[in-house]
Amino acid sequence: MSILLALAAAQAAAAAAKPLTPSEIVAKAPAAAWREVAPDDLMVIDYQGGGRTIVELAPAFAPVHVANIRALAGSGYWNGASIYRVQDNYVTQWGVNEGGPPVPAAVVKKPPAEYDRPLKGLAPRPLGYPDAYARGVGHAMGWPVAWNPATSRANLTHCYGMVGVGRDMAPDTGMGGELYTVIGHAPRHLDRNIALVGRVVEGMEQMSALPRGTEALGIYKTGTVARMIASVRLASAMPAAERPRFQVMETGSATFAAYVKARANRRDAFFNVPSGGVDLCNAPVPVRRTPALSSSSR
Amino acid sequence: MSILLALAAAQAAAAAAKPLTPSEIVAKAPAAAWREVAPDDLMVIDYQGGGRTIVELAPAFAPVHVANIRALAGSGYWNGASIYRVQDNYVTQWGVNEGGPPVPAAVVKKPPAEYDRPLKGLAPRPLGYPDAYARGVGHAMGWPVAWNPATSRANLTHCYGMVGVGRDMAPDTGMGGELYTVIGHAPRHLDRNIALVGRVVEGMEQMSALPRGTEALGIYKTGTVARMIASVRLASAMPAAERPRFQVMETGSATFAAYVKARANRRDAFFNVPSGGVDLCNAPVPVRRTPALSSSSR
Repeated sequence: MSILLALAAAQAAAAAAKPLTPSEIVAKAPAAAWREVAPDDLMVIDYQGGGRTIVELAPAFAPVHVANIRALAGSGYWNGASIYRVQDNYVTQWGVNEGGPPVPAAVVKKPPAEYDRPLKGLAPRPLGYPDAYARGVGHAMGWPVAWNPATSRANLTHCYGMVGVGRDMAPDTGMGGELYTVIGHAPRHLDRNIALVGRVVEGMEQMSALPRGTEALGIYKTGTVARMIASVRLASAMPAAERPRFQVMETGSATFAAYVKARANRRDAFFNVPSGGVDLCNAPVPVRRTPALSSSSR
Repeated sequence: MSILLALAAAQAAAAAAKPLTPSEIVAKAPAAAWREVAPDDLMVIDYQGGGRTIVELAPAFAPVHVANIRALAGSGYWNGASIYRVQDNYVTQWGVNEGGPPVPAAVVKKPPAEYDRPLKGLAPRPLGYPDAYARGVGHAMGWPVAWNPATSRANLTHCYGMVGVGRDMAPDTGMGGELYTVIGHAPRHLDRNIALVGRVVEGMEQMSALPRGTEALGIYKTGTVARMIASVRLASAMPAAERPRFQVMETGSATFAAYVKARANRRDAFFNVPSGGVDLCNAPVPVRRTPALSSSSR
């Protein structure tokens, strides 16, 4: 063996011995480990005065609610709406609180309570660590999910950045005109009590860093709002050149399995003691802007 | 039985049948279910331009670090310091990043790594639900803790609002001049890797609602800060009439046990399906301003 080959072999062995960090695993993920988000599943919220938040919708989990949201966005329902609730360590909520423009005819006013769905068809990857709320937790189709083997039902979970449909005290679900995102520790007690419809994929800080509302539940005082919304559009309704494009890591991939393992056993230079475990909401599914050269395979 | 007595009995039976919500349990907690926080354990952070954050220190878990922090506050070390790091879904960090005033002689420059402590003496109340990170989790002396029965070691946990001591990449712990608080989903992977020294008991929104820093790790651009700190004082160093007073729920009390059970089985009007479980950081220990008529028993 030449000196150069021996050196290369030694370097490879050293690299193999040092486990990759979660960030390194994501950076090195092969193209096949990513799925492109369909333009109909991307909701683009632009604020008056600048700033943007982008949400990925989850039609596989709440199809009627997501269809409502697409119809509302398509009609310009939220253009001129506001963020009117910011409750610390809980949620930021936006939309049309009272009154507002006419609701398009396509919107189902009383959608079914899409708080869970059949486990069948999801084939989730189990997280592999215990959970306080559900018998089964893991990831399916790029989403954090919980399930009950006894009932064969599964649900999205209230992790940081997940988006749900605001509703009143009555168990009837909301039609989708008011939405919220989680800005604190995962309020998993809301799981199966409310319809989750997606997650923020970019611009989370536009919602999490707002002054907290001073009234009960973080509601802003009457006549004030946290910020005004200029427009809400689906990416599919935007000119092709302006459409944002995102990819979500395939949670069934070997890359994602390695990522979760690395999150549970941090070996970054900073860490002295790996946990040996990670909870569902502390292993967020990697999301990225679609690289310029990537093919839009979906 | 008179009509009035029968009515009262019927009302009592109805009240007994409807489980109390977590808020109701806290509101009705007897005086004995609360412990007064000692003035030496309250750190009062006042900001330039107004606003205040109050931190309860945890000397039972990190005595050398807490002694350092008391000495730094006593010397005025942080008067004119800043919040210079705000990383979304992670931490807000403040203190003296570089340079700064002289460190008082009483400060231990290289404190021991108080990342955990003996389980002995804590007698924690087990949470009663599974945890992804530790064999044992629950509460001791009003704090969220994890422990390992095999090693008989226990540690504070990185829940929302917990305060820790910033350190460099080297495993040496920091001396206490830089502190952070958790502003997102609990980063429990930091447990046992860093010294936790307390928690925010009031004014959390002064740290969580700040614009996120734009540099790596949420650090603010050179020459800019999130906000300036006017002063940091212990309550014990303030005139008696100005001292804030707080009480923390006794986590060994029957009231706290009822509170955790109610958090795990929400029966508030809003909820359709109780979880049947709760995770450690989603059962925050109740804290309140000491009521005006309460005796300062500690």
